[in-house]
Parts: sequence; C-alpha cells; structure tokens
Amino acid sequence: MCQLLGMNCNVPTDIVFSLTGFQQRGGRTDDHGDGWGIAFFEGKGCRVFLDPSPAAHSPVAAFVRNYPIRSLNVIAHIRKATRGPIALENTHPFIRELWGRYWIFAHNGTLDHYEAPRGQRFRPVGSTDSEAAFCDLLETLERRIPGGTEDDDVVSEAIAGWASQVARCGAFNFLLSDGRRLYAHCSNRLCYIERAAPFTVARLVDADVEIDFSQVTTPDDRVAVIATTPLTNNEVWTPLAANEFAVFEDGRRVMREQRWKT
Amino acid sequence: MCQLLGMNCNVPTDIVFSLTGFQQRGGRTDDHGDGWGIAFFEGKGCRVFLDPSPAAHSPVAAFVRNYPIRSLNVIAHIRKATRGPIALENTHPFIRELWGRYWIFAHNGTLDHYEAPRGQRFRPVGSTDSEAAFCDLLETLERRIPGGTEDDDVVSEAIAGWASQVARCGAFNFLLSDGRRLYAHCSNRLCYIERAAPFTVARLVDADVEIDFSQVTTPDDRVAVIATTPLTNNEVWTPLAANEFAVFEDGRRVMREQRWKT
Repeated sequence: MCQLLGMNCNVPTDIVFSLTGFQQRGGRTDDHGDGWGIAFFEGKGCRVFLDPSPAAHSPVAAFVRNYPIRSLNVIAHIRKATRGPIALENTHPFIRELWGRYWIFAHNGTLDHYEAPRGQRFRPVGSTDSEAAFCDLLETLERRIPGGTEDDDVVSEAIAGWASQVARCGAFNFLLSDGRRLYAHCSNRLCYIERAAPFTVARLVDADVEIDFSQVTTPDDRVAVIATTPLTNNEVWTPLAANEFAVFEDGRRVMREQRWKT
Repeated sequence: MCQLLGMNCNVPTDIVFSLTGFQQRGGRTDDHGDGWGIAFFEGKGCRVFLDPSPAAHSPVAAFVRNYPIRSLNVIAHIRKATRGPIALENTHPFIRELWGRYWIFAHNGTLDHYEAPRGQRFRPVGSTDSEAAFCDLLETLERRIPGGTEDDDVVSEAIAGWASQVARCGAFNFLLSDGRRLYAHCSNRLCYIERAAPFTVARLVDADVEIDFSQVTTPDDRVAVIATTPLTNNEVWTPLAANEFAVFEDGRRVMREQRWKT
C-alpha cells in the first residue's frame, strides 16, 4: 500500500521532521519503493519534486530533507505500484490548474471498479487510476461550479460528494489541496494530529529522531499533519473512519459538524 | 532581459554542461537574479524545478547541476522581473496539461501591448504576461484543434500562427515543448546549435569549463541547443531572425522550408 503525508498550517512551516520519518517508509522501514513525490504550496505557486526511484535512497529526497521549504500546504506520497508501471508520469502527487489555482492530488488504494469518464478538459498523462480520478474530480468541480467560487465551503461540499461516489469503487484514501485548504478522504487507513500550543517533544516511529516543537514555534502556530499511519509514537493521532472526509484550514480541522451527502 | 535555454535530442541526454554556463548568468556573469527554473521531460512525465532566488546562488540549481537527468526535451529560464513581482508563481517555466500531454513554456521579453483574452479553460495563477500568453496559446490550440491530433505538423502550424500574432504586441522570445517537439520563437535574441558526429570539444563562455563531446556520445546522437546568446565560444551558433519560428525534433531543426503564415 502507498503512504500519504499531508500538512496544513496557519503559518509557513517546514515539514523536515515529518518527512524524515516518512521517507524511511519508501524502501527502508516499509515496502513502498516505486517512487515518491512531494508538493509544496508557497503563496499561489507550487513546487513539485518527483522521483520514480525509492524515497529512502533518492537524491531528490535527500535534497528536499536538507532544504527546508516553508509552506502552508504540503502533500507527499510514497508509491507501491498497483495500477500503471513505475514511471515519472505515474508518480504522485499530480498537479493541474483550475480556476487560476494549482491543485495537487495524491491517492493510496486501488479503484477496482472505477472507470473515469473521458474528460473534455482534464486528461491523464500517465496510466494510473489515481490520475484519472483526479482529472474526473476537476471536471466535476468545473461542471458543478462553473468558473469557481471564493466560498471554500461550497467547494468542500462538492469534493465530498464526488469522493463518496468514487469511494464505492474501491480503496480511496486521498489528499488534495488547492493551496487554501487541505482535503482528506479515508477509505481504510488515514489519521491526523493537530499540533498547537503548548508544544511538546515528538519522537518519530521510523527513525531515531525527536524534536522539541516548543523551540521552533510561536504560541499562535497551528499545524495539522495527516498520514497513512502515525509518524510519531508519543502523541495521540486521530484515526479517520471508513468513508470519512476531513477538511483542514489554518492548521485545524474545519466543517466537522458537516453531514456529507453520501 | 531574461535568459532562455532549451535542448532537444534524439536520445536522452543530460544538460549539465550547458546548464553550468547558463546558471552563471543568473546573478553572476549577468544581471538576471529574479529566480530561475528548469523543466525536464522524461517519457510522458515532466519534472519542473523552480527557485525564486538567483540561479547562481540557488541550492536547487546546485542540486540539479549535480544530478544529471537524461531528457529528450529541456527548457530552462533565468528571470529578470519586468511584469509581476518576484514570486514562485511568476517563475518560469510554466506547466499545463493539454490533450493528455504536459506542455512547458518559458518567455523572454515584455509584451507591452498585449492583453490575453480571459480563458475558459486555462487561467494564469501568477501575474506575468508570459503565463497569460501561455494560457492563451493552449486555449487557441484547443479551439483550433479540438481534442488534439497526432500530426505534429498541424500543431506546429497552429503555434506558429498564434506566435506571429502575439509577437506584434512586444518582445516575444519563447521556448515551448510538449515533450515531443521543441518550439522556439525569436523576436530579437535567440540562437541555436545542432551538434552531431563528429563531436568535438566545446568551451563555455560563462565558466572556465570545456567538454569533449566525442567522449560522451555515440555517432548517432543528435542534440540541438537553443539559447538567448551562445553558451560556447568555439562553436558556430545560428542566430534566429526577428519573427523567426523554429521547430526541433530528434535533435535537429525540422519544417525549415515552411513559410509560416504571418
């Protein structure tokens, strides 16, 4: 199974600590050696680093780990190829532009019974079911909300509705961001943590590394981290339930009370 | 003025030698310190490395220089900001997907009298005239060739026609690629070289570096390099004329005899 990692913050934050543990899962502490990628939103811009080689041995991964990019929204993915051969064009996360914003998507699971409708506007470049689903999402958003909207709740509702449909076709754990919010859908394995003051020491599961967040934060900082399985072993992570959809903004989960139309 | 660099080959080739000289122009041997970027096609996939800081001092640039990516089509750009502030979203090259392929675009010059029509499908994320023009190009291609075509000559004709129109609005030196061909349009400064057997020694203008291509090539290799000004001082570069449009495929210029409809 692939591994997902997301971060959503209220101040630009580097993800080096989480990434240090996460990257170990790409061929060292776990069996996900079929490429990896990470996307950082910086303002309206977005940087995507991709490598079809295993994360644990990737020169791109080593570079990113030593080059702290401060970002409000980050999505990373380590691939265990199921659909589509190991190739750059099949490496997550995927990027597209809609409504003058970049959108980033990464998926974990296999959509066994899913066939994406052929898009008019967005087409997959590679051969994964994941990229096909992403293109279908963007087609759906533009059809339901032509030209876009500044109301992020409307967008969130539309994404949730679409996700609940596609999730019927297989395992659909995904992370998605437009640089404003970070969206997470869980089929069978995804959890998150919201860190805020008072910050404490966190210790990685996958590497002998710990960090005292109180030394590197201010009292107003808020950071949400979402991952396939907990990255630290001395903090409480909240598991998402099957078919649960979560929306993060400014480092905290929002729209909690929402009953998604499923 | 910004600096452009492109490479088009018949076998995957690394661009480290050309890049070594080119990057010096980003804040060291020339005054273009407002960010830089490079895109590499690898199969159908594409990797884009961007940095809003000067190329000559960029850790991303150092990484890319030491990490030889073999590619058939590369586009790089060093920015001297004229339109749009220094920001990641204004850093070239830009990427979009059309017809299930990635397209990469970088521009040098200022389009003083150009206002891109508001696109239905492609919208700029940043505030440069360059990205607006790129979006307009993709809208134009989809309108003229709905759904795309496998005939690259038809696509080349459409791009040439569009470029000649936009070039009336200002300085429009650009490089464009869909991973199959590399397109170059010259308003006032762009030149190229086609390297083929017998390969010889080349010496950079901007750095005290030379390479003996005969040691790193096979007799069938063909590489075309396109740049704002010559990168080497012991080879003959061919300048493009004002309003000249050039198409490169498999490391050589094609459609030379074409009379572009201008």
